[in-house]
Amino acid sequence: MSPNFIHTYLSVDCVVFGFDHDNKLNILLVKRRLDDVPKEMQSKLPGSLIFSNEDVDVAAQRVLFELTGIKKMVLKQFKCFADPLRASSPDDIKWMSKEYKPNIDRIVTVAYLSLCKIDHKINSVKYVTVDWCPIDKIPSLPFDHNKIINESFLEIRRWIETDFSIVFELLPKKFTIRQLYQLYSAISEKKIDKKNFHKKISSFNYIIPLDEIESNVAHRAARYYKFDSKLFKKSNTKLLK
Amino acid sequence: MSPNFIHTYLSVDCVVFGFDHDNKLNILLVKRRLDDVPKEMQSKLPGSLIFSNEDVDVAAQRVLFELTGIKKMVLKQFKCFADPLRASSPDDIKWMSKEYKPNIDRIVTVAYLSLCKIDHKINSVKYVTVDWCPIDKIPSLPFDHNKIINESFLEIRRWIETDFSIVFELLPKKFTIRQLYQLYSAISEKKIDKKNFHKKISSFNYIIPLDEIESNVAHRAARYYKFDSKLFKKSNTKLLK
Repeated sequence: MSPNFIHTYLSVDCVVFGFDHDNKLNILLVKRRLDDVPKEMQSKLPGSLIFSNEDVDVAAQRVLFELTGIKKMVLKQFKCFADPLRASSPDDIKWMSKEYKPNIDRIVTVAYLSLCKIDHKINSVKYVTVDWCPIDKIPSLPFDHNKIINESFLEIRRWIETDFSIVFELLPKKFTIRQLYQLYSAISEKKIDKKNFHKKISSFNYIIPLDEIESNVAHRAARYYKFDSKLFKKSNTKLLK
Repeated sequence: MSPNFIHTYLSVDCVVFGFDHDNKLNILLVKRRLDDVPKEMQSKLPGSLIFSNEDVDVAAQRVLFELTGIKKMVLKQFKCFADPLRASSPDDIKWMSKEYKPNIDRIVTVAYLSLCKIDHKINSVKYVTVDWCPIDKIPSLPFDHNKIINESFLEIRRWIETDFSIVFELLPKKFTIRQLYQLYSAISEKKIDKKNFHKKISSFNYIIPLDEIESNVAHRAARYYKFDSKLFKKSNTKLLK
């Protein structure tokens, strides 16, 4: 007898990170509608089953566009989640029947990481509700979405170590070194001294001081900087551990 | 009408790297049997459809064990390949019918990277032929296996930058700094000067000189070293780019 091979639906789920004005990482959550489930329990990660003619990367691009209205977003596939029981709770089964079709026994999902400036206008063509949620306030989510978010955080940590420039996808176009430090501290597991950080950053020719300082701030007004991606590409000097 | 969602078989494929005595990276290939295809064209990556009760990580562990007889191997999931046309060549369809079942229209695969000391005895319980193949001599392979190998090479490059210790999975237990340098050069895209490399390596307390030097070599006999993983874990000092 031939073994029982999986024959499955496949989805993509996207974890979109933003960095808010309180120096916290946030994630974009959407709402799913299930009549007898309290509203506050209906948050989920944006995602979709993939179509029969789609590659997963194309599906993830589609989901991000449907979610934000933004055409080009930084996108990184990071992991396939295939626990046989990941879509087996009664609420999840009920929602899949309503959203997709009945009798979906299993969905394997491919998870993506994306980055978005938090002030960017979100213009969803699909979801009524799209909300930023601080990562220390993520509610209990359906499927294995909490697990996916936890792993996405480990992934963004690795990412920042291999490509420091991703932080500039999250910062405003002009930013202070304080903001850069707060963002780096929010992502990296390394504790880095503020003074050392400042010194290190000043040595990077791709972080360029502007003739402009903060206004209307309680603390001492700091200078704004901008990131020069062309200079960054030229400065590619990763360091051997 | 509801859209046409993919309903698919799912497989895992494993790219196992080794480092040979000519200082070249190698990959483990197996043979598939197809009667009317010349033998030299039957190489492929080791892989398998996943069973209905399996998670992908478990399936990859199974494939590696069936391939090598080794129970614990370093394993890293790196990418899901889901091009709708990846399993559509007549030979591939013929082989899938024979190996699995007829009418498999599409397989999505999750690719894994693994590392193996090239002198380790390979004891396959599944494959008759398991061969190391230097990466500059990889033949034309079925499905998108050449693409998977190309991407696995980019992945191992990134991996060595985030976790330098993976090189010691590929080196013999006792190794010379020359071997370490050759391996690092074979993987990394960075050109690093031999003298600087030697200096850097000497500063790492987790690379420990032994009281033993090479014998029977044409060049000047070099000292052997060993890797201390406990000291390495303590020395975790990644560097900000």
